[in-house]
Amino acid sequence: DRGAADTVAITIAHGDGIGPEIMEATLKVLQAAGARIAPETIEIGEKVYLSGNSAGIAPEAWDSLRKTQVFLKAPITTPSGGGYKSLNVTIRKTLGLYANVRPCVSYAPFVATKHPKMDLVIVRENEEDLYAGIEHRQTDEVFQCLKLITRPGCEKIVRYAFEYARNNGRKKVTCMSKDNIMKMTDGLFHKVFDEIKLQYPEIESEHFIIDIGAAKLATRPERFDVIVTPNLYGDIISDIAAEMTGSVGLAGSANIGEHIAMFEAIHGSAPDIAGKGIANPSGLLLAAVMMLVHIRQADIASKIHNAWLKTIEDGIVTAELAASAVGRPFGSMDFADAVIERLGQLP
Amino acid sequence: DRGAADTVAITIAHGDGIGPEIMEATLKVLQAAGARIAPETIEIGEKVYLSGNSAGIAPEAWDSLRKTQVFLKAPITTPSGGGYKSLNVTIRKTLGLYANVRPCVSYAPFVATKHPKMDLVIVRENEEDLYAGIEHRQTDEVFQCLKLITRPGCEKIVRYAFEYARNNGRKKVTCMSKDNIMKMTDGLFHKVFDEIKLQYPEIESEHFIIDIGAAKLATRPERFDVIVTPNLYGDIISDIAAEMTGSVGLAGSANIGEHIAMFEAIHGSAPDIAGKGIANPSGLLLAAVMMLVHIRQADIASKIHNAWLKTIEDGIVTAELAASAVGRPFGSMDFADAVIERLGQLP
Ligand SMILES: CC(C)[C@H](C(=O)O)[C@@H](O)C(=O)O
Ligand SMILES: CC(C)[C@H](C(=O)O)[C@@H](O)C(=O)O
Repeated sequence: DRGAADTVAITIAHGDGIGPEIMEATLKVLQAAGARIAPETIEIGEKVYLSGNSAGIAPEAWDSLRKTQVFLKAPITTPSGGGYKSLNVTIRKTLGLYANVRPCVSYAPFVATKHPKMDLVIVRENEEDLYAGIEHRQTDEVFQCLKLITRPGCEKIVRYAFEYARNNGRKKVTCMSKDNIMKMTDGLFHKVFDEIKLQYPEIESEHFIIDIGAAKLATRPERFDVIVTPNLYGDIISDIAAEMTGSVGLAGSANIGEHIAMFEAIHGSAPDIAGKGIANPSGLLLAAVMMLVHIRQADIASKIHNAWLKTIEDGIVTAELAASAVGRPFGSMDFADAVIERLGQLP
Repeated sequence: DRGAADTVAITIAHGDGIGPEIMEATLKVLQAAGARIAPETIEIGEKVYLSGNSAGIAPEAWDSLRKTQVFLKAPITTPSGGGYKSLNVTIRKTLGLYANVRPCVSYAPFVATKHPKMDLVIVRENEEDLYAGIEHRQTDEVFQCLKLITRPGCEKIVRYAFEYARNNGRKKVTCMSKDNIMKMTDGLFHKVFDEIKLQYPEIESEHFIIDIGAAKLATRPERFDVIVTPNLYGDIISDIAAEMTGSVGLAGSANIGEHIAMFEAIHGSAPDIAGKGIANPSGLLLAAVMMLVHIRQADIASKIHNAWLKTIEDGIVTAELAASAVGRPFGSMDFADAVIERLGQLP
């Protein structure tokens, strides 16, 4: 008997743009599936900025995150101009979310893609690299940004990638870096990879220079399994891989720290379609599925995942995937209802 | 009457790995086509390193380059380990070759590709960014690399991209940078783009954050025309785009400076297949075609280009494209002979 004692407090943020719509759809599915969660809502993003808090997040929000240690986050917007730092990056760094885990899977033939056999996971370093946020003006005409790579940072992420592979039945870890040019920084990443791989002899390993690796990813994604790479390369290749599956709107992600974990869609807040009720909630929903596994409600996670797969297989998709749709494209909430109807079904 | 007076002195380097083979094939075609060039050979790369010159290039070589101002270069290898800097980068920076121009074109159905309608040119900044080569050790565990972006550097490359578009009948220039994170450095690149585009009102312009731009490139390359981007992004997306056309072995490139210009394949020296006579000379040959246009022998350039297209259309390809081949794949020199046989023919 799983009672209230099992219930896990989580923090949620409804975000900006399409955020509130896809969060509503996601929560409806979670509730219908019987997820044992007690959500605590925080305000972050645009409204907070506009209220005069230039950090975009209030102290109480940090308190909630540090208390629940589990965060389901809708996309947020950083207002342009001014001295705003990306709030996404601030959250990842403040909470020490060092591993950004981004599965990219094809759902062909149900979602149109040129790459029907993709099934890979990008493990992106999430705190260092050019995201360190150290940038300065030398003269009017000369600007600098610092790329920072540390040994502990490399060790944590590379170890995470191999542990992930081991615990998820993955067979190969590919490292990508540009150490023919950045011999010290990217060179360190590669070196640490070569050290740590020795501790996982059952897992195949390989390294590509990022340009060649990205080219192979864009043409033969099915040859990859787990990819581990520094922050900025990970940012670029995870958008590439997600889009190649048919839509960036289908990819959820986990941002994992020592203590705290955050779950989000990899797409942005899409202000152009906000408020229309047409956004695809799948990215956030699949992030929530990852969250449920994290809080040890794997049974509910697979119930939702199966229902979602069945929904897609039944040709039910939102507007951006209209080309693959059976009949008219579904709105965000109708899509959620379609998933809910299929809870308990297998794909 | 075009006599010897027309002949242009150029510098050539046979390079490492497959370099000598593809250079031989390329020169044979140039000669047969009547290119009015007087090649002067320099030694650079592996042999020079191994002879104890840690720069990989001797003073006489620089003299030749500064004299002829035109360089046809086969791929070279930088030995691994030690303090070797990339000789490719040294040459680009020493000679002030600020624009790396990389056309990526599909030759479907003659070369198999999932993207039959690609026809784009990447104009990659070639001197700045993380390629500035400023890297240092802070502690045993902390390393830094400096990303350097200057206004004159941005202005030169952005202007080059728009001039290129104007002079080559291209309709759109797309800028890609990551200025939501690097507001000063990549922000400057974007800002300069927004300034200079106003001077080319007849050319459409747009900007993408590099992650989204690269994702669009990997899924809908046919929507791009000219892309201008900082050095490292250009490195990554040009390998992606070239490989998406069917083979990175088909792409030539021009490295353009104020005074000097260098022409090379975008692929590397492929030591694994060196000496076998099977490498595809097309990348270097198409680079040579770009060189001929540069030295105002456009008639010869299109004669070779047409013969090369006809060769490809006749199903004649080298080993790496064997899947598209009619009969057995051709060796490097046989491929060159096939091109030569077709000089004067149209595709
Ligand atoms: C919004 C932006 C700061 C972010 C990043 O660059 O990491 C996004 O692109 C992502 O991949 O989550
Ligand atoms: C070999 C390497 C230094 C070079 C680069 O990074 O520019 C190569 O990848 C290229 O694109 O020409």
